[in-house]
Amino acid sequence: MPSFPRLRRVSICVLTAFLTCWVHPLPTFTHADEGMYLFNELPTALLQQRYQFTPTQSWADELRLASVRFNSGGSGSFVSSNGLVLTNHHVASDTLQKLSTPERNLIDDGFLARSFDEELKAPDLELNVLISIEDVTERVQVAVTVTDPESAGKQRQAAITRIEKESTDATGLRSDVVTLFGGARYHLYRYKKYTDVRLVWAPETASAFFGGDADNFEYPRYNLDATLMRVYENDQPATLPNFLKWSETPATAGDLVFVSGHPGRTQRIFTVEALEYLRDVRLPFVLDYLRRKEILYQQYRLEGNEAARRGRDELFGIQNARKAYTGMLAGLQDPQTIAAKRGRQDRLKAAVARSPELAPYASAFNEIAQIQKEKAALLGDSVKLRSDLFELSLAILLMTQEDQKPNLQRLPEYTESGRDSLLARLLSPAPLYDDLQLTKLTDEIALLAERRGADHPLVSEILAGRSPREVAAELVDKTDMDVVEFRKRLIDGGYSAVLASDDPMIQLARTIEPTYREIRKIEDRLDEREKQAYAKIAKIITAVEGTTGYPDATFTLRLAFGTVQGYEENGRFVDPTTTFGGAFEHAALHAGQADFDLPESWMNAKDQLDLSTQLNFVSTADIIGGNSGSPVVDRTGKLVGLIFDGNIQSLTSDYLYSDQQSRAVSVAGVAIREAIKTIYNAPELASQLGK
Amino acid sequence: MPSFPRLRRVSICVLTAFLTCWVHPLPTFTHADEGMYLFNELPTALLQQRYQFTPTQSWADELRLASVRFNSGGSGSFVSSNGLVLTNHHVASDTLQKLSTPERNLIDDGFLARSFDEELKAPDLELNVLISIEDVTERVQVAVTVTDPESAGKQRQAAITRIEKESTDATGLRSDVVTLFGGARYHLYRYKKYTDVRLVWAPETASAFFGGDADNFEYPRYNLDATLMRVYENDQPATLPNFLKWSETPATAGDLVFVSGHPGRTQRIFTVEALEYLRDVRLPFVLDYLRRKEILYQQYRLEGNEAARRGRDELFGIQNARKAYTGMLAGLQDPQTIAAKRGRQDRLKAAVARSPELAPYASAFNEIAQIQKEKAALLGDSVKLRSDLFELSLAILLMTQEDQKPNLQRLPEYTESGRDSLLARLLSPAPLYDDLQLTKLTDEIALLAERRGADHPLVSEILAGRSPREVAAELVDKTDMDVVEFRKRLIDGGYSAVLASDDPMIQLARTIEPTYREIRKIEDRLDEREKQAYAKIAKIITAVEGTTGYPDATFTLRLAFGTVQGYEENGRFVDPTTTFGGAFEHAALHAGQADFDLPESWMNAKDQLDLSTQLNFVSTADIIGGNSGSPVVDRTGKLVGLIFDGNIQSLTSDYLYSDQQSRAVSVAGVAIREAIKTIYNAPELASQLGK
Repeated sequence: MPSFPRLRRVSICVLTAFLTCWVHPLPTFTHADEGMYLFNELPTALLQQRYQFTPTQSWADELRLASVRFNSGGSGSFVSSNGLVLTNHHVASDTLQKLSTPERNLIDDGFLARSFDEELKAPDLELNVLISIEDVTERVQVAVTVTDPESAGKQRQAAITRIEKESTDATGLRSDVVTLFGGARYHLYRYKKYTDVRLVWAPETASAFFGGDADNFEYPRYNLDATLMRVYENDQPATLPNFLKWSETPATAGDLVFVSGHPGRTQRIFTVEALEYLRDVRLPFVLDYLRRKEILYQQYRLEGNEAARRGRDELFGIQNARKAYTGMLAGLQDPQTIAAKRGRQDRLKAAVARSPELAPYASAFNEIAQIQKEKAALLGDSVKLRSDLFELSLAILLMTQEDQKPNLQRLPEYTESGRDSLLARLLSPAPLYDDLQLTKLTDEIALLAERRGADHPLVSEILAGRSPREVAAELVDKTDMDVVEFRKRLIDGGYSAVLASDDPMIQLARTIEPTYREIRKIEDRLDEREKQAYAKIAKIITAVEGTTGYPDATFTLRLAFGTVQGYEENGRFVDPTTTFGGAFEHAALHAGQADFDLPESWMNAKDQLDLSTQLNFVSTADIIGGNSGSPVVDRTGKLVGLIFDGNIQSLTSDYLYSDQQSRAVSVAGVAIREAIKTIYNAPELASQLGK
Repeated sequence: MPSFPRLRRVSICVLTAFLTCWVHPLPTFTHADEGMYLFNELPTALLQQRYQFTPTQSWADELRLASVRFNSGGSGSFVSSNGLVLTNHHVASDTLQKLSTPERNLIDDGFLARSFDEELKAPDLELNVLISIEDVTERVQVAVTVTDPESAGKQRQAAITRIEKESTDATGLRSDVVTLFGGARYHLYRYKKYTDVRLVWAPETASAFFGGDADNFEYPRYNLDATLMRVYENDQPATLPNFLKWSETPATAGDLVFVSGHPGRTQRIFTVEALEYLRDVRLPFVLDYLRRKEILYQQYRLEGNEAARRGRDELFGIQNARKAYTGMLAGLQDPQTIAAKRGRQDRLKAAVARSPELAPYASAFNEIAQIQKEKAALLGDSVKLRSDLFELSLAILLMTQEDQKPNLQRLPEYTESGRDSLLARLLSPAPLYDDLQLTKLTDEIALLAERRGADHPLVSEILAGRSPREVAAELVDKTDMDVVEFRKRLIDGGYSAVLASDDPMIQLARTIEPTYREIRKIEDRLDEREKQAYAKIAKIITAVEGTTGYPDATFTLRLAFGTVQGYEENGRFVDPTTTFGGAFEHAALHAGQADFDLPESWMNAKDQLDLSTQLNFVSTADIIGGNSGSPVVDRTGKLVGLIFDGNIQSLTSDYLYSDQQSRAVSVAGVAIREAIKTIYNAPELASQLGK
């Protein structure tokens, strides 16, 4: 819900949101197929040199305009003229969960609309299509006239807000200024928004997540992790000028493929000290949090079949993030990783020492190291109480407070240009179940008590002599925050209505808000200092290693490329492709294990299926959380696959790309079409794909 | 395995092993049925006054001599003249796990020996029967002539070792000096040991742990959490002079019952500051650890059916401890808990302020508060690498090192009097699976790197440029520590053999040992200071509140009492007893949920069962982890039940007893006999019970 981001693969970026992103632009360090390139700075020379392929402007434009970003945290693509959107089941699961009821478990049982009428409207999904990119670096930089972090940060934010507002007013498009290369460059991204998105088809969890947590991030895989939605305009299926054609043939070993999607966040330019902070402090801390929530939701789901349904998506998201972070940490704990990073950093520092021109930037490495210590001291100070009802309350309080200020002075998430998207989230009709809310809030209050100590004044004020569970029970029982109309009245009434409200959840938000703002201020100051320091390091890198390359990921559209390619693992060659037949064999091999039963639909269709049809494949393309749901296209721009996972060896690609074993895992396009036609008995829908 | 204690209900005590135990002896504070009494100081007046019952010496002696302690962490009782021992399935599960093989899953599928020949010998089980208690306080106290914690601790330990050695030499019995009332009293406990223990009967997990983790610590319950073993002497079933008779009739509401068992550890006399340390520091820390291990074993078990079998008992133990600690922490986070404790402490302090005689003891409260801070600073410093192969190596290294010293100067676990039990553990033939060992050791090395930082000199020395997984893989692959004969050779060869060994696990133990000893020394010093401080508080309490009562639990034999009694929960009355019929209803109500299917044996026997037979019941008796498997007897000393759990409200009884909702949960004796006869088709075995 509102301020707690979806914890699926994109979550890799979101939980590390403190971490400023940066670039790894050095050709000497760029491995074979490394790179998540900006669509306005495609690596044409590199592609031509390595693969004798030069993307034309129209090839790139068509791919970009068929690429879709999901606000729930993921990617997708337009795949028909009549509005079909392809993404992963695990990206759609947020919507599947919200559309489910005790009688209709879409997430486990799947869904098929036999006609437009039967398509189900998602309660709060927003899709973005990138229409244009404009470099606004100059405008942002000249606005910053001081170096003091707090004032500089405010100036920078005001400039960004002004640019966004002007763009929105002029074009009517969603306009976001994106910080690239850690603050050295700023681009204005304009998006067309789709907010009427409907569910068309989803397979069962048993098919989408076949092999469950055991097989997650593994390979070979046999997953139909795909879902179809459709965008509507004016209550009619949208007529799309741009969509991907569907390849009749699968990609095979050696084929060059491209991934157009929204990688969440990478940390490839991080200094050694920043990585050590991740390794020794932040990731262990985050993993403790994730494991805590994993057990919490497991326990909640044991309460019964309905609780299991309600808590399903929360648990799976947390589980996925926990597994991803575990892999990241394991990679960082390998001394070779830091040694490689240190080697490069030493070379940069040595170059700085030799160059009087670079001397002014020399302090940046120490500044980054110092910032890590300050971050460590802040860890656990959060008062966000991650639970939907509270987060809604805090967001409404903050929004109405910020509305008292001029637009340019507001916190960025409450400025005018993002208002529609914010309101859509705050007024989402998605169900909020009391028992699940109670579980979440109890644990968050208990966690606050653990972290600050139960006698801390803020904790004492919240508890007021009661236990965390008693407090949470009263709050959940007495608040009206679960009623959309109540939230709407508060928002419409503005700050005075919020101040006048005796809703206990609003009261709690008011109790916590001053502390929240204090911490936020400290974080923002650190963030600005980090931007300034990395901007210096950027200058060093440019001077020492040259400028070609790509910025660290920012959950904006990027192009990655690579080839379909197997790899060696434990002395054995792993074939890059799997088939439907392999899925049935895999199920038989793991008989009796949880999550290894193929659904009835598959068993019934087995005889009709061409078992040699490609089901999944891997490629060397450089992806990360947020790329889930990205289309994979061939040289002709036709869809050959759908990114849904990375293998376990790729979990270090947050900070280090390698094509030795790391692979992006895709569902084959031919498998999706064959499954919809033969397993899910929807040949008419299958025939729309790519048409 | 060796030094990592079983994490079942007794684990509540073991993980808090730093915490010195103490007494709560004040009648004014003693609630209705509170108390875990020493067998040599039974509350005869209290029982007479409240229940018009005075236990005779022979009643108490017979109960004591039929009570059994399991070294795997739990309690039990002798229930036939031919050696039958009754305990819980979850106490026996350690043995069931060790006796299982890929082809024979005793823990899930159950077991029945149709003859003595078929009974299976436990690989490393030791049962203790308490033969005598002797007060040795005077001897211990006079030996301590200094106050400096380190020297005082050594003097005290030397005195204890001397007493134990003398007793062992004189009687041949296992002799342990037990620290009671936090150091104010010392009793010598002499035990007869049984080391040939064989498995006779165990039900399926689906019956013993019916309702799974969802129902754990809940009530009403329907669990047959029982197992029968048999003690042998000279390869023949032991002929037991003392065993419990079996009551023909169930205990019913209002009946007075007694529990004779081995509560692990309570903390009822803890000062407010000690409880705050638990609440804000130690329990959150331990819970992070437990959740980490819970996820670790869950992930391990996903690797396949055989991994699921191998990791079963580890996971269940951790899960159980996690749930227990969660309840303890929740209780401490209720401000009422601390308020109640603070009220008493304030009264004690006020009395001290008024009394010149007590003035010398006044500093004890501050000293305890100070010690908590020092404990907090130590948290996470452990280098124990909890994994069987390493723990065996470290124990063998330490033992052979300690053997170089005179007996009186050794670490207590390596003195002569405990040698047989230690050797039995070190030379246990229980299987050690490489893949599970790899999982454990990898995680422990990674955890060490997280806690100390991956660049810490000790961590760097261990990693030597490799990742934690690579290090662990090489260790597990190359060590011979999994071979009993190899361990035996090392032990027989003594310290010089250990020094000469190039086994990599021994090398690792040698790398870690100096740090282990440093930390151990700091801990022991804290422990001694805490003993001295609590001894002062004990004097205050005695002066202010009187002396009757019981010491905090120490995993030694205690008598608790109470009545069979229901309670109110959420405005509803919970009946104290359940029946076989209720089990079938409960299964039907939760159809489709994991762990709510009764096993085939139950379904087949349904028609033959008297469904009105009592299955489980609750009582107000004061129990805690370690009491699992304790017999419940009536006024005549006949067995009416078998303790297997506390309800969720009882999880605070570590530091606070209440009979308002807290209940001890038992399997009914009549249910055990009926199940063995009718469900498990062993009428002959059933007829031996109590005979």
